Parts: sequence; structure tokens; C-alpha cells
Amino acid sequence: MTDRLYLYDTTLRDGQQTQGVQFSTPEKLKIAAALDALGLDYIEGGWPGANPTDSAFFEAAETTRATMTAFGMTKRAGRSAENDDVLAAVLNAGTRAVCLVGKSHEYHVEAALGISREENLGNIRASIAHCVAEGREALFDAEHFFDGFASDPGYARACLEAALEGGARWVVLCDTNGGTLPARIGDVVAALIADGIPGDRLGIHTHDDTGTAVAGSLAAVDAGARQIQGTLNGLGERCGNANLVSLLPTLLLKLPYAGRLETGVTREALQGLTRISRMLDDVLNRVPMKQLPYVGSSAFAHKAGLHASAVIKAPDLYEHIDPGAVGNARIVPMSNQAGRSNLKRRLAEAGIEVAEDDPRLPRILERVKEREDEGYAYDTAQASFELLAREELGLMPEFFEVKRYRVSVERRKNKRNRMVSLSEAVVVVKVDGEKKLSVSESMDETGSDRGPVNALSKALAKDLGRYQEMIEDMQLVDFKVRITEGGTEAVTRVIIDSADGQGRRWSTVGVSANIVDASFSALIDAVNWKLCRDVADAPSRAAVPA
Amino acid sequence: MTDRLYLYDTTLRDGQQTQGVQFSTPEKLKIAAALDALGLDYIEGGWPGANPTDSAFFEAAETTRATMTAFGMTKRAGRSAENDDVLAAVLNAGTRAVCLVGKSHEYHVEAALGISREENLGNIRASIAHCVAEGREALFDAEHFFDGFASDPGYARACLEAALEGGARWVVLCDTNGGTLPARIGDVVAALIADGIPGDRLGIHTHDDTGTAVAGSLAAVDAGARQIQGTLNGLGERCGNANLVSLLPTLLLKLPYAGRLETGVTREALQGLTRISRMLDDVLNRVPMKQLPYVGSSAFAHKAGLHASAVIKAPDLYEHIDPGAVGNARIVPMSNQAGRSNLKRRLAEAGIEVAEDDPRLPRILERVKEREDEGYAYDTAQASFELLAREELGLMPEFFEVKRYRVSVERRKNKRNRMVSLSEAVVVVKVDGEKKLSVSESMDETGSDRGPVNALSKALAKDLGRYQEMIEDMQLVDFKVRITEGGTEAVTRVIIDSADGQGRRWSTVGVSANIVDASFSALIDAVNWKLCRDVADAPSRAAVPA
Repeated sequence: MTDRLYLYDTTLRDGQQTQGVQFSTPEKLKIAAALDALGLDYIEGGWPGANPTDSAFFEAAETTRATMTAFGMTKRAGRSAENDDVLAAVLNAGTRAVCLVGKSHEYHVEAALGISREENLGNIRASIAHCVAEGREALFDAEHFFDGFASDPGYARACLEAALEGGARWVVLCDTNGGTLPARIGDVVAALIADGIPGDRLGIHTHDDTGTAVAGSLAAVDAGARQIQGTLNGLGERCGNANLVSLLPTLLLKLPYAGRLETGVTREALQGLTRISRMLDDVLNRVPMKQLPYVGSSAFAHKAGLHASAVIKAPDLYEHIDPGAVGNARIVPMSNQAGRSNLKRRLAEAGIEVAEDDPRLPRILERVKEREDEGYAYDTAQASFELLAREELGLMPEFFEVKRYRVSVERRKNKRNRMVSLSEAVVVVKVDGEKKLSVSESMDETGSDRGPVNALSKALAKDLGRYQEMIEDMQLVDFKVRITEGGTEAVTRVIIDSADGQGRRWSTVGVSANIVDASFSALIDAVNWKLCRDVADAPSRAAVPA
Repeated sequence: MTDRLYLYDTTLRDGQQTQGVQFSTPEKLKIAAALDALGLDYIEGGWPGANPTDSAFFEAAETTRATMTAFGMTKRAGRSAENDDVLAAVLNAGTRAVCLVGKSHEYHVEAALGISREENLGNIRASIAHCVAEGREALFDAEHFFDGFASDPGYARACLEAALEGGARWVVLCDTNGGTLPARIGDVVAALIADGIPGDRLGIHTHDDTGTAVAGSLAAVDAGARQIQGTLNGLGERCGNANLVSLLPTLLLKLPYAGRLETGVTREALQGLTRISRMLDDVLNRVPMKQLPYVGSSAFAHKAGLHASAVIKAPDLYEHIDPGAVGNARIVPMSNQAGRSNLKRRLAEAGIEVAEDDPRLPRILERVKEREDEGYAYDTAQASFELLAREELGLMPEFFEVKRYRVSVERRKNKRNRMVSLSEAVVVVKVDGEKKLSVSESMDETGSDRGPVNALSKALAKDLGRYQEMIEDMQLVDFKVRITEGGTEAVTRVIIDSADGQGRRWSTVGVSANIVDASFSALIDAVNWKLCRDVADAPSRAAVPA
């Protein structure tokens, strides 16, 4: 007998409560698409009405499997559910499901809401019933449930009953302030089920304020709850919510869950988990946490000499799961065996075939390591990696040489007495022995200043002699900046994404203490990569320099 | 009846297995002193003999309360404990206690060691007995205990018995590959105690590979184990060890532990916990994790409007402990989800008193929202928020006016034919009606180029007339860049952290399509905030402009 366990993601709503996190609508759409593809059952997209970007998201969002869910609050006292404008805004988002948060702790009902206990029960029942009458699947998030249950178990339970009477599909036990420990969560869930609340209508929503949100969710499932609410990478207010990225592999791969609980996430989809976790960091422009369970880059790194030698003999000696099951990889720093075959694979992807015992391979690994110590990162910037490898292999033609550049940024008052900025860049390159000076400014078609990197990029692309034709269809599509460590000093790492008219898209990296230098060096790599590709595609044009 | 719970720190040994972590001897001494002052019972300092810095550390280390412990391995087969040079090196460190790791999983005994099960039991017994005969307190770390117990409970238990027979004070159940979940840990500990292994000689050592290391430690204590091994900030191989910084407050402040278990750490010492956690990050030159339970800078940050307004009414509504108990502080940041009471509170913190019904409050909220739509983010940049509010309230003096600036970045060959960069900035300000031109370049003391923002920052701070004295002790301590959405276009958001000689630290934000402009505007805010503060502190100097 396998039970169905439902997974509810609230990255886009509760996750956005993280300090410093504010998703744009396109970012929300991208995350929702990844969650849907992964196989999550519910995606809580935001609070329509409370937040303008949330309303825009619900208008644009589409899912294939996941139930899109709008979040809101139970109606206020003194008006009917039908006449509550806040609730109306939530229903107007038109989602299949609606999740309403309400009080279940008598202290909060009195201290925070200032209404009677009976009024609160009525508000819960009527709000849920209104959503059901509107044809929606309704969920009730019982705020501060565990504190409420400790203080007055009868009343806390009555709040759940009110929601179930209203027709709620799920009542979710929220440990809102994150203070309840797993053993207690397990006991409370067991007591509720023994007292007649069906486990397959009970959900759990934990926070990581004691570092036990994942374990608290598991304790609830052990006791019979059948829905888990959490976020990707444990985003969320204060210390974050239960991390679904940590929970999913445990539920799918490990006892006592694997094979006994059925989820919407398949083992095949789970292999994309590391990629999804990194994608979210990318959206947030965060450095991925190396130590993250399952998906961190250190999660299967064996540093101890003892472990490293043993893990080569038999991986299962020191690994509780196969790293590939979550799309991650083993790292054994001492053995460049793994490094070498990995390198060979990456070169093959770039169309460069090298024998496994080629003596240049360890040299390339050495160069990559040196540059990573300086602050470079090649895991996303595959094009820059390819150029580095080509150089080491003697396969990198010098298409052009940059002799010098100069860029200025000036801000002053214009004729209308408004402060405006303008950048101007001069780039001097030598192509086929001929020196070429180009100058550009940073104004776009609308007359707005796009800054010094834009000006440099335009000047560089203005005249590259016989290569000019090849770079005409190139454009800069994204630009990421991160302050990182290079040796002991802070340096700037710039990653540039470029695209061309043939549908190619490639990433290059530049590092320097000077942000303009870092950007320029990533730009140069982008142009060189494009020329490598186009020259290879059109050898008859004999564009390879002598 | 209160039980004594012993706390064992292995930051300096297992913590050093973290990828990228290598402590120097002075760093180890600094960390050991902090652990000793905090009240930890045992400090595992390293593996003498295996690591040269470990031997140097044990020579220099002194503790007042904590038992200094050397780590090692049970003797190898085919020689006596007295003649094992590896074991001799461990004993030579002269520590009061010695902790020896050994196998307790029959698969590992055979696959990794290649000796018989009986030989392994003999090695454990003899090694421990030898340490005890040398007058040391002995501990046995049972490697892979939980996997061993699952595979052959009788043999795993026999390994513990062998150590206890040898005279071990503690036998420690190590979940070496981090794969055992808390419920299982609790069951195994309970079974061992029921089977005659005394709980007050049982320790637990967990890893965070499933995100449950803290909960696993608590489950073992719940079942009767009386020693916890862990590390500061959860350092450790792969995903890290159990985080003592998360465990200590739970054990000292929360039920069912507070008042029922006695530890060497007092509630008073616990107030230094946030400082110790940050000190370790400082040693490692890491940015402290904001979401760390209890001690992270976001751990008591209330962003949701709903929470923020309630937490002001009664902090215990949304906080499970008082932040001061661990030396941390509450934060109610600004963001477009924040309500009016949140705003009022933030203003009060900045020394600005406004009535709750002041008509300017909604205008400030409106401005914040507008600017957030342009790409600004105020929840970290509180200083920029304060300036915006002051402007809206008519409380923002114009200390100086920036008339214009110009910055250039040039890259060309130097006399030695190497490509070098240099930036030069000119800033023109008007102070007290007087125009001041300042110029600076981006070279630091070592002759390295630090880029255009550095040059601008120096030029701006060169001459601010009568305010010059106030900004002399200001420095830029961090700089973060993120490409984000401003309306429909990509813009750059720059956040600058500044500090002054009075120990203040503040963050400001600037947004523009031009990265230099965005940086400059954050710099201007930083200077203005500093002047607001210093002028308020020294009104007698009459520095407020007319």
C-alpha cells in the first residue's frame, strides 16, 4: 500500500519574504515553469492584490500539471466573505486553488485581531466555504498552530474543524515562528489524527528557526500528514522555510519513504534537482551554498585522505546515495582521474577531440585551477573555458589584438538643467597588421544612457576588418556581476551572455578588481568564441589568420 | 532531576575537512579560546602527527575549563598498541583526553581494513586500554555506526562493548556518511540503552547530508544519549557536521531541554553566541549566512507586513525566543510589503518621531514602492531608506550639491610592455556656495588599479569643506552589484556597505542602467547618511546648513 504525498511549493510567496529577495514577473514565471516540470503538486504564486507583481504573474502563468494556487487571508470580521475586497482580489486571480491563512491560536485572535474566538471560527468557515462555492479547491493555513495547540488544544483543533466544515481540501499546520521541534510536531500530528482529523487532509508548514525545518516536516509525515509545504533552497522569512530541495531526495530515495509514499516528482525528474537549485541562485544572483544537502557542490566532495581513498574503492562506503540521482557529482580532490574524463567530455562538447592520455590535459586542469583561484568560474562560462583550452592546445588563432581602450563616464547638467550621464569609449585593435580606432557612445535608440560597458561593446564591434561581417549578428543578452575573492583581495567577476542570428547563445567570464576591465575581458572572449565558430563553419572563406 | 549533557566541539578537526578550509595555528588558538570561554566540555584540536599544524597547536593550546582532546585512529592490526607509531603521536600531544575512531560496520572492517571481525574488536579494546593506562580519558568514535547497526546490530554493539571494556569514558555513535534520519537515530539509541549501554556514556556525531544533523542530535538526546559532537557554524566535510550554534540555544532555552539538562554553557555565555559565530566567519573570511538559525542577521528580521505589524504589538507573537538571549537583534526592514506601523518603527529607530496618522507616512510608503519598481531595494539598504524618508518629511539638509563628475578608465601598455589599467575621477561639488574640484586616481598602496568606483569614491571624499572632518573616518567595506529589472529594462543595482571610526556600519543603494552612476549614487547616500548622524551628534558645531 503506497500513500500519496502532496508537495506544495511556496518559493514565490513565502520564499519572497526572504530579506533582499524581490522577484520580477519574468523571474516568477521562470521559477514556476521549473517547479511544474519537476512535478510539484501545488505552486503558490503570491498574494494577488497585496502585491502588483503577484497579480501580473497570475495573469501570465500557465502550468501543465501543478495546481496554481493564490494565497490570501480569511475574511475580516464585520463583513461577509462575498463583500471582503481582499478576498475578492485573491479569487479574481482565477487560480484552481486558493490557500487562506487564518488564526488558530486564541492569544493571537485576541491580541492581534481583537475579535472573539467564535467570530474567528466563523470567519474561517465562511471564507473557505465562499472559495469552495466559487469552484476552487480550498486550503487553510492554520497560523501559529503548534503554539495555539500548546495553549488551548481544543480551540486550535476547532479552527481546523471550521475549515474542514467549510469544505477545505487541506488544513495545514503552520509553525509560523519556527519554534516547534520535530518530536513535538510528530506528537501533535499523531494526536490530531487519533482525534479524528484525517491525515490525508493534513499538511505541514515549518520554518528553520531551530535548524530543524526539514526534520519537522519528516516527523509530520511519519505521524501521518500527507502534504508538505516548503520552498526551493529553503528561501523564506527569517531563517527560511523547509527546504524542498533537501526533502525531495530523502522522500524519493531513502527509507522509510522510498517506495512507500508516492509523489508527483519522479526519480527521473529528481535528476534535474541540482540544476533547478542552481537556477534559483542564478535568478537571485547568489553564490550557491556549497554545503547544501544533496545539491551543494561540496555535498559529495571527499576531502579527508581516509575517505577519499576509500570512496574510490567503493563509493557506497562514504556516500548514502548516488550523486547522479540528484544530478550532482562526486568530487575527489586528490584524484585527477575524475577531473580528466570530465575535461575530455567538455572538450568533446566543444568539438575538440583529445586522447585521454594526452599530456596537455593535466596542463589545462592546472590552468583552470589557477584561474579559479583568481576568481574565475568556468562552470557557467563554457565559452571562456573552451578558449582557455584551445590556447593550451595550440588551437586558438589570434584574430585580432587589442592595443588599448579608454572609456569615460560623465555626468552633468544638460541644456534643460537636468543631470544626465553619457559614456564614450575608444577601442584600438590591430587586425591583419592594420590598426583600427573606433569610438562609440552609450546612448540607446531612446536617448537613454546604457553605461560604459555598452559603449565599449559597441566600439569593439565597430570595425574588426575582414571579421566584421561575422560579428554583425552578435548581441549582448545578459550581464551578471558578482564581487568575489581573487586570492586574498575582492575582485569583480563579470559573466556575459551573448547570442547570434544563428540561434547560438554562449557565456564568457572576465575577472578584475576593475569592473570595466572585467567586463571588457568577457566581451573579448565573447567575440573570439564567435569568430572561432564562424571561421570553423566557413573554412572556404579562408578567414583563419596565418 | 537534571541530567548533565556534555558538549564536544570538533570545529578544529572535523570542521577543517570543509572544502576550502585550512586553519593556521594562531587561528586554531583563537577559536579554541572562544570555545573554552563559551563553556564547551571538550575541544577536539586535531590529529597530532597526521597534520603538522595540529601538533603545533597542541603545544601552544591552553584551556581553563574545556578538556583538550587529541583525535586519532585505533591501532593497526599486527602490532601492539604500545608499538603503533600513529597512536604514539596522538598520545605525545599530551592532552587530557584522546578520541580514537574505529570501525563498527562489518562491511568496512572487511572491505576497507581487510582484517577479521575479531581482530577489529581486539584493536578497539587494546587501543582504548592503552590510552587509559597512559592516564588519559578515552573516547571511542564508532565510525559508520548506524549503517553497521542496520547490517549487523550484534557486531556494531560488540564494537561499543569492546571500547567500554577497554575503559572508554564515552562511546560515540558516528553517522559518518550522514544518511541516517532522526527517527532512526532515536530508535537505535533507545535500543542500545534498553540493551544495557549506559546513556551517560553514549555520544552522538551526525552530518548534515539530509539537512537533519541538528534534529538527529536532538533525537539521540531525547532517547538518552548524553554527549553531542558538533562544530561551530556546521563546518565539516561534504554538507557539514551538526551545528552547535543551532543546538546550544535550543538546549538552553527551549523545552523539553531548558531546566532539565545541565550543560557547561551558561545562559550568560550564550549571549556571546552570535559574536562567536561571526568571529569564525571572520577567520574564514566568509560572508556570514544571513539565514543561520538564531545567529544569522535575518534570523529575527520580519519582512511580511502581517508579521511586522504584529511583532511590534507583541514580539512573542512572531519570535520563539528573545533575540538578545543569543546576542542577536530584531530587524523590521522596509519593503513594499511593509505597513505603516513598520514604517513608524523604522523612523523611530532613526530618531525620527512621527504620529501614526501623519499624512506624510503614506507618501513615504508610496515613494518606497515607486523606487522599488525602478529596481531599488530598501530592506538591506536601511540608510538610503532613512534619507528618502527624511526628504519626504523635510528633514533632509542639503549638505552639498554634486555639480558634475567624470571618470575615465584607460587600458594600455606600460613602459615594460605590459597591459595595465588606470582610472581617474574628477568630482565637482558645491559646499556653502563654494565650488570645489577634486581629482583622484584608482591606484591603491600596492600600485594596483582598483577601478573607477574606487577613484570616484576617493575624489568625492577629498574636499567637502567644513564637513571634511566628519567623513575622514569613513570607509567603503563592501560593494554588491546585481542586474535587475527597473520597469521593463535591465538596470544595475549597487549596494554599498560603509563603516566609520565610531563602529557604525550602514548600507546604501543606487540604481541606474549605468553601473558607474548607480555606484556613485549609493556613495552619495553613504556620505549624506554619515553627515546626518554626525551633525545630529554634534549640534554645537552648528554644521547644519541654513
